[in-house]
Amino acid sequence: MKKYIFLIILLISISVSSQTDQEILKKIYTQSLTNGKSYHWLNHLSNQIGSRLSGSLGAERAVAYTKEELDKLGLDKVWLQPVMVPRWVRGAKEYAFIETSPGKTTTVNICALGGSIATPALGLKANVVEVKNFEDLEALGKDKIEGKIVFYNRPMQADLINTFAAYGGCVNQRYKGAVEASKYGAIGVIVRSMNLRLDDLPHTGSMTYADTSIDKRIPSAAISTNDAELLSTMLKLNSSIKLYFKQSCKQLKDVQSYNVIGQITGSEYPNEYMIVGGHLDSWDLGDGSHDDGAGVVQSMDVLRLLKASGIKPKRSIRVVLFMNEENGLRGGKKYAEVAKQKGENHVFALESDSGGFTPRGFSFDCNDASFNQVLSWKPLFKLYLIHYFEKGGSGADVGPLKTDSNVLAGLRPDSQRYFDHHHASNDTFDAINKRELELGAATMTALVYLFDKYGINPISNQETIKD
Amino acid sequence: MKKYIFLIILLISISVSSQTDQEILKKIYTQSLTNGKSYHWLNHLSNQIGSRLSGSLGAERAVAYTKEELDKLGLDKVWLQPVMVPRWVRGAKEYAFIETSPGKTTTVNICALGGSIATPALGLKANVVEVKNFEDLEALGKDKIEGKIVFYNRPMQADLINTFAAYGGCVNQRYKGAVEASKYGAIGVIVRSMNLRLDDLPHTGSMTYADTSIDKRIPSAAISTNDAELLSTMLKLNSSIKLYFKQSCKQLKDVQSYNVIGQITGSEYPNEYMIVGGHLDSWDLGDGSHDDGAGVVQSMDVLRLLKASGIKPKRSIRVVLFMNEENGLRGGKKYAEVAKQKGENHVFALESDSGGFTPRGFSFDCNDASFNQVLSWKPLFKLYLIHYFEKGGSGADVGPLKTDSNVLAGLRPDSQRYFDHHHASNDTFDAINKRELELGAATMTALVYLFDKYGINPISNQETIKD
Repeated sequence: MKKYIFLIILLISISVSSQTDQEILKKIYTQSLTNGKSYHWLNHLSNQIGSRLSGSLGAERAVAYTKEELDKLGLDKVWLQPVMVPRWVRGAKEYAFIETSPGKTTTVNICALGGSIATPALGLKANVVEVKNFEDLEALGKDKIEGKIVFYNRPMQADLINTFAAYGGCVNQRYKGAVEASKYGAIGVIVRSMNLRLDDLPHTGSMTYADTSIDKRIPSAAISTNDAELLSTMLKLNSSIKLYFKQSCKQLKDVQSYNVIGQITGSEYPNEYMIVGGHLDSWDLGDGSHDDGAGVVQSMDVLRLLKASGIKPKRSIRVVLFMNEENGLRGGKKYAEVAKQKGENHVFALESDSGGFTPRGFSFDCNDASFNQVLSWKPLFKLYLIHYFEKGGSGADVGPLKTDSNVLAGLRPDSQRYFDHHHASNDTFDAINKRELELGAATMTALVYLFDKYGINPISNQETIKD
Repeated sequence: MKKYIFLIILLISISVSSQTDQEILKKIYTQSLTNGKSYHWLNHLSNQIGSRLSGSLGAERAVAYTKEELDKLGLDKVWLQPVMVPRWVRGAKEYAFIETSPGKTTTVNICALGGSIATPALGLKANVVEVKNFEDLEALGKDKIEGKIVFYNRPMQADLINTFAAYGGCVNQRYKGAVEASKYGAIGVIVRSMNLRLDDLPHTGSMTYADTSIDKRIPSAAISTNDAELLSTMLKLNSSIKLYFKQSCKQLKDVQSYNVIGQITGSEYPNEYMIVGGHLDSWDLGDGSHDDGAGVVQSMDVLRLLKASGIKPKRSIRVVLFMNEENGLRGGKKYAEVAKQKGENHVFALESDSGGFTPRGFSFDCNDASFNQVLSWKPLFKLYLIHYFEKGGSGADVGPLKTDSNVLAGLRPDSQRYFDHHHASNDTFDAINKRELELGAATMTALVYLFDKYGINPISNQETIKD
């Protein structure tokens, strides 16, 4: 019997190795589109578990579920990597209104920013000063800001094609808005949601107090884009209107959580590691389907698709589901720290954390030799409408793994709809298209297959000693 | 005063002509993304007017509305082109169930196919024979089909990347299913909806009776993909189950309708026509936002964007909003017929009728010289992530304009989500993303700008005599 199994494995190996890259890619895409698991997994993660903020019950259940599912795949190794994570809780639903005169109010949609302190228990009411950026704060000075609520209202730039660039141009209002405003005596901060469209949903996200002393910390919330427009218009008509808001969020003690890791051990270079990953935690308003349930299930499916396509990798391929990308990056840092302690050689890392939309390609953080190698594979991807291969960032969780010679990459899906959902209550499963998700998983698998087959940074590979 | 206006126009002309193509494209995209009208127009067309099947009140109102809006743009000419169109009405909502034994029924979701006759007033109940294609009919023969309902259940092929290819591989079941089944004595036809995902929505679409005599015509309906799966499973368990369905649709007399046309007259070659268009009619189940409200408003915006970007075209640019693409193509045929009568030289025609999703590029129906010219512009589009330039079809409405030397083109948006909505009740405005729609309008405008500037088919242009 053993002999037969050996023969079958041998025959599969021969048949795979004699296939062209075109044939292998075709197999991977077909497998993902006709027999993919990503959508099924995401359905469970989103609809059975739901939001998964670090330290929450959802996060705990997501760790257990994804570990269990990886266990079923017949990988060589599946384990949990402990990591201490921050725990912030939103508390009761936030409430806010604009008061034009005593008793005359208009409710607006807000949500606390992740990491913010609460308002006083009875809420906070004050005049509002609208600014576009930190320079405006300086120009206004303490006189005009002290005792007021600062309203950051710089919209995302609509004429940037890549919406992540528009996000990058705005997010300092959210992340550092409280720190900067408190320097001028502001007592609260309201930030226009990072959303390119006009709607009623506030978008949360992380903020920092940096080294602001505890007594100087001020509560900070996001307001929907429609209500940001409303507030701005009302301020133009009457600068003495007031804003009231109330939130009861709280930073609790750090708790134990985990990165979830699965591995196919390499047949030739088991000590060279290639990882694919996304983050398991998500903000608490939606169910985190795009951010980053999609990246989680796609990364899991990469290992399954390799196996299902009969590919036996030469290097060790790991899926890493990182905990706490959203408000601490503890999982990404921990993974890199442990890898360093163990002297593990991470030659490649691919992250999917830009939504589950139609994949367009990848951005790379690597040297020219590796990038040219990638460009030589471009024709293989043309059939699948994968055309974007550019140098640029990779992803927050894999970032700490960067070395001079390795390759970091980020999947780049179509970005137009992403910020309609990002960190808001409509980041939910119904916004996911099954085929788009599956095309992403296949595209990631194809890149992993090619890098495993041809090696990373060919010069350094010549020096690799076989285990 | 007149002198000043002249000077201003001259200055604008000089400033535009001294700009590089990169700068002009940047201007077009920025204008569309920050000041586009497509989304506003589509909101009205979808939410104030709604579905627009040929001959319906909606179609009539859509003609009036789009004419009115074109009138406001300050074009050189706006007019209605009369065309007689068929009028088919659905009547009361269809009803269907599977009967496993007398009195034991399960309701399923169906809708009549466009052009189908009604069932008898009390409905139709019969045994069901499932087939995948017309060859199956032949293999089964009259014996096994006569007196039964034929159930076409060939799914769209999931592993095709271009979903239009998957549609092309299936749609003969819908279009010719009744003709073929009636040859073997079938009394009704049920077709699996042309939808790649599993859901509860039936998708309508046109069907033909070709030259089938009136007494041999059989009613034909689409069933949702979920219910197609259900029916198929139940048939496997018990081949003697029956299907009941009832529909009261009707083909009425042809009625008068219109193509809506607007024109910017060319400054150098006014007798060379370049057109952009989409179809104004839509199926009646949703509001036709993707099919083809998107193409209508994008085409309208092309002329507005040219003007707003200070481009004064050399050739005459027309927007043509075609009537009756869905169930007759009368508008497209009429436009070509009139153009021929008038001896109008249509050097270029671009159609947008593949949904309002993120544009990926164009397909072209043209000679090699023109196609190579297009390829030379590819680098200009890279910034906008427009990468798809392939030979292939253009569009149904512009098809009749084909000559040996002109260029026909079709906008190619991302196709993954299109058939989730196509011809179904969820082809509605909420499935439209504003930026995706605007990127499409800008991409169309950029192509029109380049073809106008550099000419179509340079060889024949040398022979062009200035008007």
